[in-house]
Amino acid sequence: MIRFNNDYSRGAHPAILKALADTNDTSYNGYGIDPWCEKAAAEIQKTVGRPDADVHFVIGGTQANFTAIAACLRAYQSVISPVTGHIHAHETGAVEHGGHKILTLPAENGKLSAAQIAAVAEEYRVSPIQEHITQPKMVYISFPTEYGTVYSLRELTDIRAVCDEYGLYLFIDGARLGYGLAAAGGDVTIQDIARLADIFYIGGTKCGALFGEAIVILNPELKPNFRSFIKQNGAMLAKGWLLGLQFYTLFHDGLYFDITRRAVEMAMDLKAAFTAKGIPSYMDSPTNQQFFILTKRQLAALEEKYVFEPDHPVDGDHDCVRFCVSWSTLPEEVEALKADVAAL
Amino acid sequence: MIRFNNDYSRGAHPAILKALADTNDTSYNGYGIDPWCEKAAAEIQKTVGRPDADVHFVIGGTQANFTAIAACLRAYQSVISPVTGHIHAHETGAVEHGGHKILTLPAENGKLSAAQIAAVAEEYRVSPIQEHITQPKMVYISFPTEYGTVYSLRELTDIRAVCDEYGLYLFIDGARLGYGLAAAGGDVTIQDIARLADIFYIGGTKCGALFGEAIVILNPELKPNFRSFIKQNGAMLAKGWLLGLQFYTLFHDGLYFDITRRAVEMAMDLKAAFTAKGIPSYMDSPTNQQFFILTKRQLAALEEKYVFEPDHPVDGDHDCVRFCVSWSTLPEEVEALKADVAAL
Amino acid sequence: MIRFNNDYSRGAHPAILKALADTNDTSYNGYGIDPWCEKAAAEIQKTVGRPDADVHFVIGGTQANFTAIAACLRAYQSVISPVTGHIHAHETGAVEHGGHKILTLPAENGKLSAAQIAAVAEEYRVSPIQEHITQPKMVYISFPTEYGTVYSLRELTDIRAVCDEYGLYLFIDGARLGYGLAAAGGDVTIQDIARLADIFYIGGTKCGALFGEAIVILNPELKPNFRSFIKQNGAMLAKGWLLGLQFYTLFHDGLYFDITRRAVEMAMDLKAAFTAKGIPSYMDSPTNQQFFILTKRQLAALEEKYVFEPDHPVDGDHDCVRFCVSWSTLPEEVEALKADVAAL
Amino acid sequence: MIRFNNDYSRGAHPAILKALADTNDTSYNGYGIDPWCEKAAAEIQKTVGRPDADVHFVIGGTQANFTAIAACLRAYQSVISPVTGHIHAHETGAVEHGGHKILTLPAENGKLSAAQIAAVAEEYRVSPIQEHITQPKMVYISFPTEYGTVYSLRELTDIRAVCDEYGLYLFIDGARLGYGLAAAGGDVTIQDIARLADIFYIGGTKCGALFGEAIVILNPELKPNFRSFIKQNGAMLAKGWLLGLQFYTLFHDGLYFDITRRAVEMAMDLKAAFTAKGIPSYMDSPTNQQFFILTKRQLAALEEKYVFEPDHPVDGDHDCVRFCVSWSTLPEEVEALKADVAAL
Repeated sequence: MIRFNNDYSRGAHPAILKALADTNDTSYNGYGIDPWCEKAAAEIQKTVGRPDADVHFVIGGTQANFTAIAACLRAYQSVISPVTGHIHAHETGAVEHGGHKILTLPAENGKLSAAQIAAVAEEYRVSPIQEHITQPKMVYISFPTEYGTVYSLRELTDIRAVCDEYGLYLFIDGARLGYGLAAAGGDVTIQDIARLADIFYIGGTKCGALFGEAIVILNPELKPNFRSFIKQNGAMLAKGWLLGLQFYTLFHDGLYFDITRRAVEMAMDLKAAFTAKGIPSYMDSPTNQQFFILTKRQLAALEEKYVFEPDHPVDGDHDCVRFCVSWSTLPEEVEALKADVAAL
Repeated sequence: MIRFNNDYSRGAHPAILKALADTNDTSYNGYGIDPWCEKAAAEIQKTVGRPDADVHFVIGGTQANFTAIAACLRAYQSVISPVTGHIHAHETGAVEHGGHKILTLPAENGKLSAAQIAAVAEEYRVSPIQEHITQPKMVYISFPTEYGTVYSLRELTDIRAVCDEYGLYLFIDGARLGYGLAAAGGDVTIQDIARLADIFYIGGTKCGALFGEAIVILNPELKPNFRSFIKQNGAMLAKGWLLGLQFYTLFHDGLYFDITRRAVEMAMDLKAAFTAKGIPSYMDSPTNQQFFILTKRQLAALEEKYVFEPDHPVDGDHDCVRFCVSWSTLPEEVEALKADVAAL
Repeated sequence: MIRFNNDYSRGAHPAILKALADTNDTSYNGYGIDPWCEKAAAEIQKTVGRPDADVHFVIGGTQANFTAIAACLRAYQSVISPVTGHIHAHETGAVEHGGHKILTLPAENGKLSAAQIAAVAEEYRVSPIQEHITQPKMVYISFPTEYGTVYSLRELTDIRAVCDEYGLYLFIDGARLGYGLAAAGGDVTIQDIARLADIFYIGGTKCGALFGEAIVILNPELKPNFRSFIKQNGAMLAKGWLLGLQFYTLFHDGLYFDITRRAVEMAMDLKAAFTAKGIPSYMDSPTNQQFFILTKRQLAALEEKYVFEPDHPVDGDHDCVRFCVSWSTLPEEVEALKADVAAL
Repeated sequence: MIRFNNDYSRGAHPAILKALADTNDTSYNGYGIDPWCEKAAAEIQKTVGRPDADVHFVIGGTQANFTAIAACLRAYQSVISPVTGHIHAHETGAVEHGGHKILTLPAENGKLSAAQIAAVAEEYRVSPIQEHITQPKMVYISFPTEYGTVYSLRELTDIRAVCDEYGLYLFIDGARLGYGLAAAGGDVTIQDIARLADIFYIGGTKCGALFGEAIVILNPELKPNFRSFIKQNGAMLAKGWLLGLQFYTLFHDGLYFDITRRAVEMAMDLKAAFTAKGIPSYMDSPTNQQFFILTKRQLAALEEKYVFEPDHPVDGDHDCVRFCVSWSTLPEEVEALKADVAAL
C-alpha cells in the first residue's frame, strides 16, 4: 500500500537522522538551554527577518496551540477561530480544558475574513453586557488551512488591520507552514507571517522533522515567562536539543523550504491528473493536501493500492477524501497514483 | 567537561537510533495506532506479567503525570504526594493547572509511609465537613524517588493495603523505573509494581530512549477513554510509532534492564569512592542518583572537570550536590571521577 | 418609569420577606444542613413526584449551570446546547472556564430538536477519530427557552429517547420554570420534567424568591458528592436555611405556581394588545417574556415611560425588544402599557 | 440549645431586614448596576479613606477568594498562604480547581511572618529552574485569622514591605474584618488595611448582613475587567442591589463597627470566664472566635445546653473546641454560658 493519508506517516528527512546520529554521544544541558536551540533560534530569527523574535521549541501542534493560547489570554478572554480550525475540530477540547472559550465562525474555503472578525470584535465593543460575555482577544487562523487553502497577502494584511483596530492578537498555526509558503500562486512569505502575526509557529512534524514545532513570538507583551507556560503545559522536552538540532538542520541551508516546495509541486501534478480525469476538487487547494470528490467506484478502485483519508460523505454515490503529499512522498508514488487515476 | 548532572543529557541507546534509521522510510498510521505500539505493548504486558494491562505511550514525564491524574480524579478529589514529589516540586503547578489539589506530606528519605497515607485518608473519612475539603483519592509516589531511594516490597505492600482500605488509587511515577528495579539491595520487581499499582509508568527518557514514557493501567476503572485524556492533554505524538518502536527495542530482549543495571553498578562504584574519601551522602541512595555533601573546596575542585547539579546549600562551608550516572555514562567517565575524588 | 426589562427587578414575594422576618432571630446550622432545607426538599420531592430525588439549593443560575455540568461530565466530555443557550451566550465562558466544551447547535424558536441531538451523538459514535474530539455526554436545554418558547411534551419525550439511545444526560435549566409550566397551550408538567430529565433546576430568583435555585437530581449516577461540587464552585451559601426557607414558602402551598401563572396571563394579555396594534412578535412566546419588533418611532414613544430591553436590531427602522412580565408585575402596570400601546 | 458554633447562624441585623422590606416594591437594574451599589461603594470608599478604590459586591467568601485570585494571577503564578488559611483548608480545592497552586507555609498563631514570605519569594528569585516551579505572586492572609488572632500594624507593614520588594500582591481575606478591627489590644484600622493591601474584602455574612462580601481593589493593575471575573466565577448576584443595600445599611452610620465591637467585648468577657475557671485557650484570640481546651467532662457538660464546634482532639482527655460570639449573640446567652462555665 502506498500512503497518501497524511503528511506525518514517515520518520524524518535523512539529514535530520544523520544529525541525530552525529550528536548522539555528545551530552547537553536539558530543557532547551543548549547550543542547538540557540543556533536554531538564530537561524529562524534570520529567516523570518526578526532578530528580536523569541523562539521556543515544543513537541507537537496541539501543545503549541494550547500553550500559546494559555500564554496570551486571561480567563475571561476568548479566541476567534473558523469552525474548521484545528483547535476547535481536532483537539478534544484542549483549549476549553485550559479554560478558554473558542468563538467559532463559519469558514469560507477554510478561511476567516477580516470582516467576520471585525463583526465579532465590534459586537463585543458595543455590547451593553460585556461582563456577561467573553472578550474576543485573539484570532486563530491556520496557514495553510485544514483544507489546504491559503490566505493572500491582502487577506492577511486586512486581518492584521482589524486586529490592530480592536486590540486582538493574531496567532497563526503553521503546522504545515512550509507547504503554505510554497502554495501555487501564493504571495505570502515567511517574513510577511512574522510581520503580521503576534505569535505563530513553524511546523516541523509534518515538514521533515521527526517531531517538533517552533513557536515564534513577535509581540513583546507575550514574551515574558513563556517558558513557564511551556513547562506547565507539558510541552517542554527534557532533551530539548533534539528540537533545536532538527530546526537548525531544516533552516540553516533552506532545506525546510526545498522539501515542502517539492511536495507542493507533486501535489499540483497530482491534482492535474485528477482534474484531467474529470474528478472535482472539494476546495481548490494550492498546497500539499488535496480533497477530491470520488464516486464509490473510484474510491473502491483506489483503495486497493493507496491509503488516503475519508473526509465526509457527499451523497449516496460520492465521498470527499483527502490525499496528502509530503516531504517524504516519492516521485514514483505520485507517478503510480497518476497512472491509476488516469486508468479509472 | 564530563557530565554527571542528569540522566537525560545524551541522545539514545545505539539500538534505538538504529531502529529509527531502519524504519525511517516505512510509512505508518499516526497517533499510536500502529504495529510498533502494538508490539511494544505486548512486550510490556509480558514483562510485567499482566496481559490485561492497557499500555499507552506518551512523550514525557510531566505529561504522563498530569494526564494520569486527570484521568483518575474527579474535580473534588486530590492526590497525596510527598513534599519532594516531582508533581509538587518540579512541574510548574501543572496538576493544579489541571484543577486538582496536591495534599503534600513530609517525606522521609523521599518516601511516604503507609501510616502517613492512612492518617490523611482517615482524617477525610471521619471529617464532619467532607464537602469543605477535597477527597484524597490517589497516592502518588516515585520509584525510585527524586532522591534515588527505593521502597521495599514490604513498604509498597503496606501502602497498597492502605489504598485498598480507603479506596485510593496508587500511581507510581517510574520516570527512572529501571534504576529503581536495579537498586542495590532492592527487592521489588516490575511484576510487583504491576501487581501493586493501579497505574504506573515506565520511563524511557532517562533510561535509554530518545524520549517517551509507557503508561501501564491495571485497574479496569481507569482504562476507558484514556486516549481522549492523552489527546486533550497534548501528550499524543503524531508519529506515535516512534514511541512504540523505542519501547519495543528496550523491552523485547531485556535491554532496558541491562543498561539501567549497569548504570546502578557504576553508581555504587562511585559512591564507594566518595565514601572512601570520607565524603558523606545526603541520603543513602542505592540507585543512579547520588547526593553528596561537599566542602566548598571539594566542589570547586570537581567543578573544573565535571558538570553536576547543586541540590541545596547545607551550611556556610558545605553544599549538597547531585551526581547522576545513566545508561549513557561511560566506564572511563566514572573511572576519571573516582580518581579525581581520591585525589581531593 | 415602569420596568418590564427583566423578571428580577424587584425583591421578593411578601410571603418570603415575612418568612425571613419571622425566623430572623432563630439560629441554625450552616451550609444547607438545617430543617428548612430539609422541609423544602421534601415539598419539592412531593411536588415533582419523585421521593427519590436529591434536592440542593444554590444561589444563582450561572452557578447552578456550571456546578451541574462540572458534576456530570469528565474532562473529555462536552455539553450540547442551542446557540442561544444561556450557558453559551450569557455566562462569560464559565463552562469553558470549568474545562468543558459546549457543542452549539442552531436553535429553532430557541429550541433544539431530538434529531439535531441525535445527529451530533451519532457523528461521535461513528467517528474514526473519537479521541480527537470531545464526547457529547449532556444535553442542555432551557424550559422555557431564552426566547420564552417552550418544548411540547412530545418534543421533550423525543429528546429523552435520543438521550437514552446515546447515553446522554438531559439537563434542563429551569431558571424560569414556573413561567414555562404555565405556558399558554403548554402540555408539560413539573412531574414530566422530573421524569424526563436526569437533572434540572427550579428557578427562584426570577419566580418570586429573593434569590436561589433548587437543583433536582434524578439520575442516581449524578448524586454522589454533589455537595462537594457545590462547595468547590462557590455555590454553597453559608446561611443555607435562607434558601430552604424560600423554597418551602414557594412550594408548600403552591405559591410558586400561582404567581408565575398570573404573570403568564398578564403577558398573554399584553401580547394581545401589541398584536391588536399590528406589532409583530419576534417569536410566538407563550410565557412571560415577549419579544416585539418595534419601529423606531414606537420604541421612542414607549421608552418615555417604560424600561424594556433591546434584543437586536432588525433593520434600519425596526428593533427587536424584550418586555418581561414577572411575579411582581402589577395589573395596573400592564394596563398602563396596554393603553399606551393602543395609543401608539 | 444556645448556639455559639459559628458567626453565621442567624439571619441579619434588623436594620437590614427593614431596608429589604422598605425597598421590596421598588424595581432596579440587575447585576450590581444600581443606586444602592453606587451609594454603598461611596460609603466604603469614604470609610477606608480611598476614593480611588473599586468596590464590588459578591455573595460569599469562597467566591470572593477564588474570584480575587483568578483576577490577580496568571496560570504559572501561585499564592502564598498559611497552612491554616481558609483557601487551603476549607474550600474544597476551589483555588486549584481554578488552576492555581497554593504555596502553604506553617502558621504561628494562624499568621504568616514577613520573613517567611520573603524566604519563599527569594527562593524563587534565585532559582536556576524558575520555569519548573510556580512564581509566588500573591500573599493571602486573613484578618482576623481562622483562629481569631490578628496581625499588628508592625507585622502588616513588614509584610507590605516584602510584597513591595518582590512584586507580590497582598490579598487580605476580611470575612470577619469587623471583629478583627475591634480586636482587644489591636492597632490596625480599616484605613491601614486599605493602605497596605492591593485587594481585600469586607465580610458581611458573618458581620450582620444576610449575606455578601465587599471586595475592595486598591491596586490599579487589578481593576480592569473585574466584573468579567465576577460573572465568570458565578459570583454576580442577579438582584445586585440586595448587596449594595446591605452594605449601605452597615456602613453609612457605622453600624458595622458597632455590632462587631460589641461582639468582641462579649467574647472577651466570655474568655475571662473560661480563664477564671482555669480552662486554657488554644490560642490567645482577641476577637470573636475563642478556642478552648476542654476536658471530656467539661465538654459533655457544656454540650447539654450549648452548640459549639469541635476543632481538634488534643489528647485522650482533652479537646480543642471553638465558641463564636457574633453580632447576633444576645447578652443573656453570654451570661448563661458564663454562669455554666463558672459552675463546671
